[in-house]
Amino acid sequence: MSKTPATDRPATDMGLVVVGAAGRMGQTLIRAIHTIPGARVIGAVERAGSPYLGKDAGELAGVGRIDVAIGDDPLPVFARADGVLDFTTPASSAEFAGYAAQARIVHVIGTTGCTADDNARIAAAARHATIVKSGNMSLGVNLLAVLVEQAARALDADDFDIEILEMHHKHKVDAPSGTALLLGEAAAAGRGIELAGNDVRVRDGHTGVRKTGSIGFATLRGGSVVGDHSVLLAGTGERITLSHHAEDRAIFARGAVKAALWARGKKPGLYSMRDVLGLS
Amino acid sequence: MSKTPATDRPATDMGLVVVGAAGRMGQTLIRAIHTIPGARVIGAVERAGSPYLGKDAGELAGVGRIDVAIGDDPLPVFARADGVLDFTTPASSAEFAGYAAQARIVHVIGTTGCTADDNARIAAAARHATIVKSGNMSLGVNLLAVLVEQAARALDADDFDIEILEMHHKHKVDAPSGTALLLGEAAAAGRGIELAGNDVRVRDGHTGVRKTGSIGFATLRGGSVVGDHSVLLAGTGERITLSHHAEDRAIFARGAVKAALWARGKKPGLYSMRDVLGLS
Amino acid sequence: MSKTPATDRPATDMGLVVVGAAGRMGQTLIRAIHTIPGARVIGAVERAGSPYLGKDAGELAGVGRIDVAIGDDPLPVFARADGVLDFTTPASSAEFAGYAAQARIVHVIGTTGCTADDNARIAAAARHATIVKSGNMSLGVNLLAVLVEQAARALDADDFDIEILEMHHKHKVDAPSGTALLLGEAAAAGRGIELAGNDVRVRDGHTGVRKTGSIGFATLRGGSVVGDHSVLLAGTGERITLSHHAEDRAIFARGAVKAALWARGKKPGLYSMRDVLGLS
Amino acid sequence: MSKTPATDRPATDMGLVVVGAAGRMGQTLIRAIHTIPGARVIGAVERAGSPYLGKDAGELAGVGRIDVAIGDDPLPVFARADGVLDFTTPASSAEFAGYAAQARIVHVIGTTGCTADDNARIAAAARHATIVKSGNMSLGVNLLAVLVEQAARALDADDFDIEILEMHHKHKVDAPSGTALLLGEAAAAGRGIELAGNDVRVRDGHTGVRKTGSIGFATLRGGSVVGDHSVLLAGTGERITLSHHAEDRAIFARGAVKAALWARGKKPGLYSMRDVLGLS
Repeated sequence: MSKTPATDRPATDMGLVVVGAAGRMGQTLIRAIHTIPGARVIGAVERAGSPYLGKDAGELAGVGRIDVAIGDDPLPVFARADGVLDFTTPASSAEFAGYAAQARIVHVIGTTGCTADDNARIAAAARHATIVKSGNMSLGVNLLAVLVEQAARALDADDFDIEILEMHHKHKVDAPSGTALLLGEAAAAGRGIELAGNDVRVRDGHTGVRKTGSIGFATLRGGSVVGDHSVLLAGTGERITLSHHAEDRAIFARGAVKAALWARGKKPGLYSMRDVLGLS
Repeated sequence: MSKTPATDRPATDMGLVVVGAAGRMGQTLIRAIHTIPGARVIGAVERAGSPYLGKDAGELAGVGRIDVAIGDDPLPVFARADGVLDFTTPASSAEFAGYAAQARIVHVIGTTGCTADDNARIAAAARHATIVKSGNMSLGVNLLAVLVEQAARALDADDFDIEILEMHHKHKVDAPSGTALLLGEAAAAGRGIELAGNDVRVRDGHTGVRKTGSIGFATLRGGSVVGDHSVLLAGTGERITLSHHAEDRAIFARGAVKAALWARGKKPGLYSMRDVLGLS
Repeated sequence: MSKTPATDRPATDMGLVVVGAAGRMGQTLIRAIHTIPGARVIGAVERAGSPYLGKDAGELAGVGRIDVAIGDDPLPVFARADGVLDFTTPASSAEFAGYAAQARIVHVIGTTGCTADDNARIAAAARHATIVKSGNMSLGVNLLAVLVEQAARALDADDFDIEILEMHHKHKVDAPSGTALLLGEAAAAGRGIELAGNDVRVRDGHTGVRKTGSIGFATLRGGSVVGDHSVLLAGTGERITLSHHAEDRAIFARGAVKAALWARGKKPGLYSMRDVLGLS
Repeated sequence: MSKTPATDRPATDMGLVVVGAAGRMGQTLIRAIHTIPGARVIGAVERAGSPYLGKDAGELAGVGRIDVAIGDDPLPVFARADGVLDFTTPASSAEFAGYAAQARIVHVIGTTGCTADDNARIAAAARHATIVKSGNMSLGVNLLAVLVEQAARALDADDFDIEILEMHHKHKVDAPSGTALLLGEAAAAGRGIELAGNDVRVRDGHTGVRKTGSIGFATLRGGSVVGDHSVLLAGTGERITLSHHAEDRAIFARGAVKAALWARGKKPGLYSMRDVLGLS
């Protein structure tokens, strides 16, 4: 993300709307905007019938009164906003994308699970809205995936074995994590292969020697670990390890705000976090 | 291992015999003795018929001539030695223990796979020989196991989850490593439980939440990694990690020499590496 | 900390008083008690004149109403409590220790900076109160210090070099951290030497070879790191690393609650976190 | 390094000359060629008067007889070689570059300390020779430097603090390591700043808060560590760590052989390890 010189910064803060403002992620977004210079909350939207309608979005998020009441009508707030932050549901995000296109503003979408139809509606909206969409809004994880892909491309599979290790808290019910798989996909892409069929998910008992070109996974669970991921590239006599350590789920909200600030003034289109990082 | 003040050191170097002197581990032992102050090679034994009989043990090991010819008769060399280093076979080690008992000297046994009968013969020999026997002669791994047991005892299983991670080179054909299992046994002992039935060997797909009190394993394979082991104790808001990193298989030989130096002058008996470390 | 079987647990929760209840650490203590089974808040004390007098301690701490109003008179609440958690000031802690002695209850003191006179008053109070006092209430850090001391005792200084690495957030203004120094003291104690005179605080430019027996420190600063500490014992061909990773400052509050639960029913005296861990 | 499909591989092994063949690095090069498919030793050169002239280069390096006698005349062996591996001295390397130009072959130069004049002679030779020159021939370290530069470019200095940690064996006499400084230069380049003036070499006592945009260094020394380097990028709530672990000094020789194989058939010019990695 190329740094904008202070003198080139817009004279006014970017006015952002948070949709799903009373939910856990909505509140985290409001707190993130509160701590990042250059942005402020100017609207907060919840679904019709929410018990939080009319409450102050800042007070609800624990940052004190910000004089933004939670409402259920997106259109008027989108009309006076510079951007929208959206970690809601696929159907809602597709709808909000349409409104963002009408308002010709930035729309940052962290929603996961979109169908092909949802994605088509979002892509259509991107003719008029500046949309950044990613399944993982952390700057660090997205950067790591880019670096992993490059490392996997640069090093011969005959010479370097790739292994992916992740650790999460004891309450997580599946393995490997979605982010571990995303990193595995990045490694496979770097090598020009498919992950499916080249992954080794478990090792126990007699495994035989490691298959050249395979991508191994290992999973740790315990305590309250938010999310640690490491990609190891192990060769003869040397090893490279590329790791991401998350302290706090708020990094996804921070990444979304950063994406909005980056997108301000960019022409309409559908962007990814790699664009935000300047690495696409 | 309490440090012996220089003034208390024996006036002469400890004279050691290496059995299996022409094998890979025997040569490593000769090199290790060569680099550790206070010990020197005074005998080298191979089986009758070995093509290396008569050759200089130092030249064979690559440290230059030491004027010790490899022979096939242990008795005369044991008779003038202070100790024997032995990474051979169970049957040989049981026999050498008897000779060490006759000579009333130190016998360090790193041989694995001993049967109950072999162990009984070794225990009988320990009435007159000072025997140190361990399946893993690395000072570091043995120390780590002691620390893991203590940590597992000190922390409630309700509060801290134990996970064991290991990485080895791509040629290793089984998982988890013997040392990972040894560390798992240490953790289980600290908690007063059996490892069997409380271990979680693999995680893939829907695993459900982590079971309280279980001990998890994860395995990485790649490159030329000699052997890395970590034990994690993960609680709410904090994590302890106890790790061992091996650079070189020579650490097993170094540990054996250290054990011999420690055992010199100790009364006959059967000792472990925990005794050598002063932690039993 | 030996685990208490469920059947041996006291029939009733331990009733705890938090002093300094409206401060940042006081609120953290109230939240910690709220999440740990076997304890509950029965009193909350602030200094006379505090603007928070009369407010509900649970609401202030963000865990919802607990029907405990913050008051300024410790005596009546101590009289009906099982224990007191205290991260206040040296003078206050010495005074509270006297009250705890009168009430013959548990007093957990995490206050730092006590003078010799404060400590003498606390020691006197420990004739009738069961006091646990430590400058660092984290279970993990205290356990790590014990393990470091043992490792340093077990391994010869001629063979293993000890290094201490710490990382903290970018706002920290001093180096090395107090905990890094505590770990250095533990290593020195294990070796039977003083840390002062054997520590190497910085390395830059021509340093010469490492001095045998010295204890090195290295410091990293960045981001929002709560506190990472590693002690490395590096020998020829192998390395042991003993690490603590703090995710959250709440671990100090959790450790204090654990200490109180451990102390319940113990006879009066002055205890440390090593006693709580069963490792003294 | 894009992988060459087996079908596109040259029909014959690449014939390599090792200059300085009797030295420590020369022998390591011969062993590396011996283990990497696609290359073989066809010449070995030492300075006139060397006591090793006439000896078999393979026997000297410990890989057994290869029927290549060490000689002192480079011209005839260069004339029938595909490439030269050279970790000698600046003056020798400049001279060998001229011979490589005459023979129109590959010249891989790992020599350090070249003067401006040496570099000018090498650059002139690169009009006819295919030269790869780098101060650090490890594939892993060169890849890491590229990744560090990209990460430093992608992340705002206001948001992410960069720290560089290195550990080496107890005999190393200077700090930070040359590779740590190389990684610091890569980080500075990514940010578009100079390292000089922005580096923080030591921290002890009252340091004040971390200066935004600075690049910190920390150094560990101990045991027999060949060389570990980590670059940390620490932000609010997340951390990226990019690490290289060297097990063995032979990685520099392996990298040189890989560079030669890459350079075979490339047009004359002066290349770096970044070119070899396909990342320039």
